[in-house]
Amino acid sequence: MSAVVVQCLHHLLICRRPHISAISTLSSHSLHPRRNFCTRRFASSVPFHSHKHSTSTQDNIVQHITNENDGEVMEAIDTNPPRGTRDFTPEDMRLRSWLFQNFREVSRLLSFEEVDFPVLESEALFIRKAGEEITQQLYNFEDKGGRRVVLRPEITPSLARLIMKQGKSLSLPLKWYTIGQCWRYERMTRGRRREHYQWNMDIIGISKVRAEAELIYAAVLLFERLGITASDVGIRVSSRKVLQAVLEKYSIPQHLFTKVCVIVDKLNKIPIDEIQNELISVGVSLGAVKGIIEVLSLKSFPELEAILGSDKEGVADLKKLFFFAEDYGFSQWIQLDVSVVRGLAYYTGIVFEAFDRDGKLRAICGGGRYDKLFSMFGGDDTPACGFGFGDAVIIELLKDKGLLPNLSHKVDDIVFPLDGELEGPASRIASALRRNGRSVDLIEDKRLKWVFKHAERIGANRLILVGNSEWQQGMVRVKDLSTREESNVKIEELC
Amino acid sequence: MSAVVVQCLHHLLICRRPHISAISTLSSHSLHPRRNFCTRRFASSVPFHSHKHSTSTQDNIVQHITNENDGEVMEAIDTNPPRGTRDFTPEDMRLRSWLFQNFREVSRLLSFEEVDFPVLESEALFIRKAGEEITQQLYNFEDKGGRRVVLRPEITPSLARLIMKQGKSLSLPLKWYTIGQCWRYERMTRGRRREHYQWNMDIIGISKVRAEAELIYAAVLLFERLGITASDVGIRVSSRKVLQAVLEKYSIPQHLFTKVCVIVDKLNKIPIDEIQNELISVGVSLGAVKGIIEVLSLKSFPELEAILGSDKEGVADLKKLFFFAEDYGFSQWIQLDVSVVRGLAYYTGIVFEAFDRDGKLRAICGGGRYDKLFSMFGGDDTPACGFGFGDAVIIELLKDKGLLPNLSHKVDDIVFPLDGELEGPASRIASALRRNGRSVDLIEDKRLKWVFKHAERIGANRLILVGNSEWQQGMVRVKDLSTREESNVKIEELC
Repeated sequence: MSAVVVQCLHHLLICRRPHISAISTLSSHSLHPRRNFCTRRFASSVPFHSHKHSTSTQDNIVQHITNENDGEVMEAIDTNPPRGTRDFTPEDMRLRSWLFQNFREVSRLLSFEEVDFPVLESEALFIRKAGEEITQQLYNFEDKGGRRVVLRPEITPSLARLIMKQGKSLSLPLKWYTIGQCWRYERMTRGRRREHYQWNMDIIGISKVRAEAELIYAAVLLFERLGITASDVGIRVSSRKVLQAVLEKYSIPQHLFTKVCVIVDKLNKIPIDEIQNELISVGVSLGAVKGIIEVLSLKSFPELEAILGSDKEGVADLKKLFFFAEDYGFSQWIQLDVSVVRGLAYYTGIVFEAFDRDGKLRAICGGGRYDKLFSMFGGDDTPACGFGFGDAVIIELLKDKGLLPNLSHKVDDIVFPLDGELEGPASRIASALRRNGRSVDLIEDKRLKWVFKHAERIGANRLILVGNSEWQQGMVRVKDLSTREESNVKIEELC
Repeated sequence: MSAVVVQCLHHLLICRRPHISAISTLSSHSLHPRRNFCTRRFASSVPFHSHKHSTSTQDNIVQHITNENDGEVMEAIDTNPPRGTRDFTPEDMRLRSWLFQNFREVSRLLSFEEVDFPVLESEALFIRKAGEEITQQLYNFEDKGGRRVVLRPEITPSLARLIMKQGKSLSLPLKWYTIGQCWRYERMTRGRRREHYQWNMDIIGISKVRAEAELIYAAVLLFERLGITASDVGIRVSSRKVLQAVLEKYSIPQHLFTKVCVIVDKLNKIPIDEIQNELISVGVSLGAVKGIIEVLSLKSFPELEAILGSDKEGVADLKKLFFFAEDYGFSQWIQLDVSVVRGLAYYTGIVFEAFDRDGKLRAICGGGRYDKLFSMFGGDDTPACGFGFGDAVIIELLKDKGLLPNLSHKVDDIVFPLDGELEGPASRIASALRRNGRSVDLIEDKRLKWVFKHAERIGANRLILVGNSEWQQGMVRVKDLSTREESNVKIEELC
């Protein structure tokens, strides 16, 4: 095994924080109930001549190590990333890259172009009055210049901002995708993360249901690539225009529409009584509340047409989408479900969300048409449609279904000099192989046994041993790690 | 040309911000001196019955549009991303992806594994007392839970944190890379960005100069892949141990070492008098100041050995590196230059930076050995070495040298139904082609002329026209866009 391993294995690290007040420090620590503390060992080079320290495993106790010479305070710091955030080890990163590669490949198949925006955005882009969860959990703050900024909770407003900025230089339709990190800040819930990565696909400039069909098809292609079938996942589809038709039927003012949508989205999350009360409190009549609740339970076109009539735009849009589904070949994935409303204020038409048929997980992805976002931002109406697809729920689902791929670090060659004096030749060989496109791990100062284990772990193809006698003949010893065959190979024939 | 273009082309967007105080709004706007404002045009569907508006091109004036019904204030908002940040249009994104792909490919050749960390980190990781620029420009703030957090200014401390957290589960050496966004906040300078992406490569657990050699070789491989030669770019190399030897010669206490390095790094950026004064103010004697300045001007081994003797560790390390450079084949890229110190407090040994030989740009990348960072964080000493390579200066250099690649959106097929009734067949064809791995842009409701122009712009290979008469024979019309040849092709022979 490895002769060299990490010597210092504290689960905590300690560094100097001379300028942080005790108050903010303590309040920060009081939110980490399962912290442990350990004693810091000073390296001899650190310029402290003496120190006191206290150790405790109790909560809310901060370890201070006072340096008597300069009064600096040393403080134990968690080696964990900030609460609600993740590190990506090589293994985590391989999984993330694999998922993103699938997002990118589907985007390529549909001829979407990649774009990106700052993770730090102006808060103003996300201030909406509809009471959405997303705007109530903004990770926002004031920067040193007094600007209200936010770690973006979603990507669509930035996309709309850029399209308005680019203006006439753009030719519609646009088919754009983004893979980016989104943030939220919520105080109460434990175990939920504050960041996730989201794949967004948006089509700007197409008012026909074609846009929705392409987007749902993209999500289906992604599922298929990951090995997920229509018996694992379904996509519920509705249109906010259906809800709008109900509001019109009861003569409810148009300006209540968004608020009603945001309230109704909480169905199946909070008790129905509360939904009714919330609807009444914003000014919806009791009769209309009952009409809304009734229509939300519908799951078929005949029922829907019986209540709304067959001439409604929302119903026609949905029927069109189901026709498209036949042509694209994703009929078995989608189902009509009027209770799908989605939580974002700006959706105006068809909305959809993918769910696991076992009913264990939150929505896998969700999207819809948002034809009024541009006018809300001060531009003219521009038809637009998109979805967001997070990296968290899909990974949970793949885990549940045993579909996570087995991804390991891949290396072509390991170059290992058998003698310290051969570091020059080893450098030459590694450099030549790499310049020829081969990935080479150059290893020194290990035992041969370690090198073999390492080669196996990283799935190397060849082990190239640089020994003195072979080198003097212009040769190296090469072991093919799949066939286990060994032979001496001329340097110039290696690549 | 396109019949549908973005109709709303304001350079400003307007949205509702009911809860933001006038004070923070005004102070935020006063920092954007070149803003323009335009009148918002309401779309008819927006639920406002009447509004007042004012227009002004003057600075510091915020446009308010008062809605008389509910008293909400509409406010003009810049369509620009937050100050100092970037949007990535498809074109920008192609360039970024190309650069990152080169970073990743070089990392693969050297058998590095990718890792990542949160862009939001604990401030404590970056609190250092040496007066570095990087710690004086922290983009830091207090979150809603009272935690001091920061948009990371660099990646190395997070890497050290994760390695300490992982502890014994890791087997050294580690060869890790990251491509991530880093942030700084500085009030004064105009035209400098507040974020950039940085490629980091780090080797943990190798104390030999092999680590430095591999890292510099990686940077050189990257340059070569981009078409940059050793006559465009050089890499200056020194070791902080040389400076340390000078300090020892003058019996300057060890604890001043980091401060001296950070001051000396400002050479060529501020007048030499100021450097001398700063050194004296931290407690360096006038004699030692002269000794330091003298050694910093050295550019050859004989000069260096004449002053320090040939037995110094710093000199031996550097000589070793130059031997390695011969074997790896990058001798022509590197040169000894003792004035290179680098600005990060934690470097302890060899330091290096790549520069353009025309002397127009800032450092292209920089790195060095940081053997004490782990002990500074509360662990035992762990040998470590790495570099950071930003995305900004390299792009400037490639632009200057005419080496920017010509990257365009690439699509295999365009499918275009000639008749609205053929949207179903068009869907079927597009879906089948995509399931076969071809990227397909499905276009509708455009004139054929637009489609041809579009095909040219995106470099499509084939144009597939779905017409009624061909479709009834199970065929489509296919135009090969490179040969200009047209023919009818059976549907089943398309893929």
